[in-house]
Amino acid sequence: MQMPKYVEVVEVGPRDGFQNIKTPIPTAVKLKVIAGIIAAGVKTVEATSFVHPKAIPQMADAAEVARAVAAAAGEGFRPIALVPNLTGAKNAWAAGIREVTYVISASEQHNLANLNRTRDQSLADLAAIISELPCLKVRLAAATAFGCPFRGRVEEDLVISLAAAALKLGATSVILCDTIGVADPLQVYNLVGAMQREFAGVPVGLHLHDTRGMGLANTLAGLEAGITTFETSIGGLGGCPFAPGAAGNTATEDMVNMLHAMGVETGIDLDKYLETVKIVREEIQQNLTGHMAQACKYENL
Amino acid sequence: MQMPKYVEVVEVGPRDGFQNIKTPIPTAVKLKVIAGIIAAGVKTVEATSFVHPKAIPQMADAAEVARAVAAAAGEGFRPIALVPNLTGAKNAWAAGIREVTYVISASEQHNLANLNRTRDQSLADLAAIISELPCLKVRLAAATAFGCPFRGRVEEDLVISLAAAALKLGATSVILCDTIGVADPLQVYNLVGAMQREFAGVPVGLHLHDTRGMGLANTLAGLEAGITTFETSIGGLGGCPFAPGAAGNTATEDMVNMLHAMGVETGIDLDKYLETVKIVREEIQQNLTGHMAQACKYENL
Repeated sequence: MQMPKYVEVVEVGPRDGFQNIKTPIPTAVKLKVIAGIIAAGVKTVEATSFVHPKAIPQMADAAEVARAVAAAAGEGFRPIALVPNLTGAKNAWAAGIREVTYVISASEQHNLANLNRTRDQSLADLAAIISELPCLKVRLAAATAFGCPFRGRVEEDLVISLAAAALKLGATSVILCDTIGVADPLQVYNLVGAMQREFAGVPVGLHLHDTRGMGLANTLAGLEAGITTFETSIGGLGGCPFAPGAAGNTATEDMVNMLHAMGVETGIDLDKYLETVKIVREEIQQNLTGHMAQACKYENL
Repeated sequence: MQMPKYVEVVEVGPRDGFQNIKTPIPTAVKLKVIAGIIAAGVKTVEATSFVHPKAIPQMADAAEVARAVAAAAGEGFRPIALVPNLTGAKNAWAAGIREVTYVISASEQHNLANLNRTRDQSLADLAAIISELPCLKVRLAAATAFGCPFRGRVEEDLVISLAAAALKLGATSVILCDTIGVADPLQVYNLVGAMQREFAGVPVGLHLHDTRGMGLANTLAGLEAGITTFETSIGGLGGCPFAPGAAGNTATEDMVNMLHAMGVETGIDLDKYLETVKIVREEIQQNLTGHMAQACKYENL
């Protein structure tokens, strides 16, 4: 079982997590959590989403959050924001963000339901973003890359064709997202292999959910297939707003614990990170689905 | 990524799970759950533990439960009970049980703390059981095979030496137990490999906990190393009585879902099994740590 030496952890809690919390989170609390995450050694943070505040009021402070995080950029720290369209991308750029995540679903039905556009329309918007903001790096987040609530299991070809189109337009990397948490390890291993065969040299990451308990199993499969970039969320926040009690995103602290146990470096100080998990629990969400915050701590382990 | 065609699921909820529930569970409810588990197609159930009722009052009905489960034996169904000593083994035999689990910790400190005996004393008791009940099959459950709260990470040599001694005495199989849920996938893969090199042909199983979210990741590592027997618990009951809220055993339904998604057969009807998970939630424990009971169900997935 071959493990990489280093894994890049992309923290998405401040975006994917916070946007799913119904009670408004004060901007100051968001910034405190983000500062704690950065202080623990996380080098890449998806800090907010430049969506219309009518669609997601939780992200109405996107510009303020982005400016604060962009100010922390440098010495290896990369702030990222999600943008749904050209307007969002322009606002992100104005706030100092130089790299964005742009979501298109592999499943046409899900893209229509989630974004009210066809895949082709989403790709046309991506082309507009890249054309108008040529210095902005755009990562493609391929949603429903494994399963779709409408379509069922998603065929590899749909992901490959989406990635090919986005990369041709100028996207610089691809994140395969298990949007509803139905991927299984064999599927992850196989899709990653197919991506690598098709797009040699293109950075590919994984965004995995723990909805069915497979978050870290799928992470392991991704590691074995050669993936070294994983998106996770503090405390396991976010990912599945529709099933209360159900786990959503894989928790950053759970993944980092597994990686460190296997000797894989992340540059993150886990104890320090867990202090920020505690802040999240006290000030944002009492019931966290991540495991590490609840597990016993042993002195010599 | 090579997967086996079939995995034997050993359901330990009625023993490991029920013994950790503080509120007394009526014997009739226990039997209803066990009957549901068997009806869903589970072929091996660890049904109870023949411990002294003063030590674990939850298991005071061991003989009654064992007799009911033993009566269901046949057509591939194997009932198992845990026994802590010769008296327990004799009682299990009298109740119709023909295969038992006998626990010894790889870590001497843990064996002393948990069983009030040295490893050698435990092995002497094992010898007495096998000598007095020569037709009883005895599986060695090697506790703290990966980590120990007192010792820290457990060295492979300790597990190998324990297994060698028990197999020499006549134990027929070995279960590697991650008693406190600290194993990582690489460690699982490596220990299983060491066991296979040392004891070719001896059946080896895994008993994994989800305390730190690695239950299914460790299962995957075990599958890749060639393990085809896994002990899991309905709803994720049991495993860690000392940390309320923390996950314990890996949930049977979570593992079966992962296996089926990867095309690995178990002989279990997951939908039917989930009906019994619902009974457990309604009649025994409201807050289950298993994931499948909370996850959305999609029609076409």
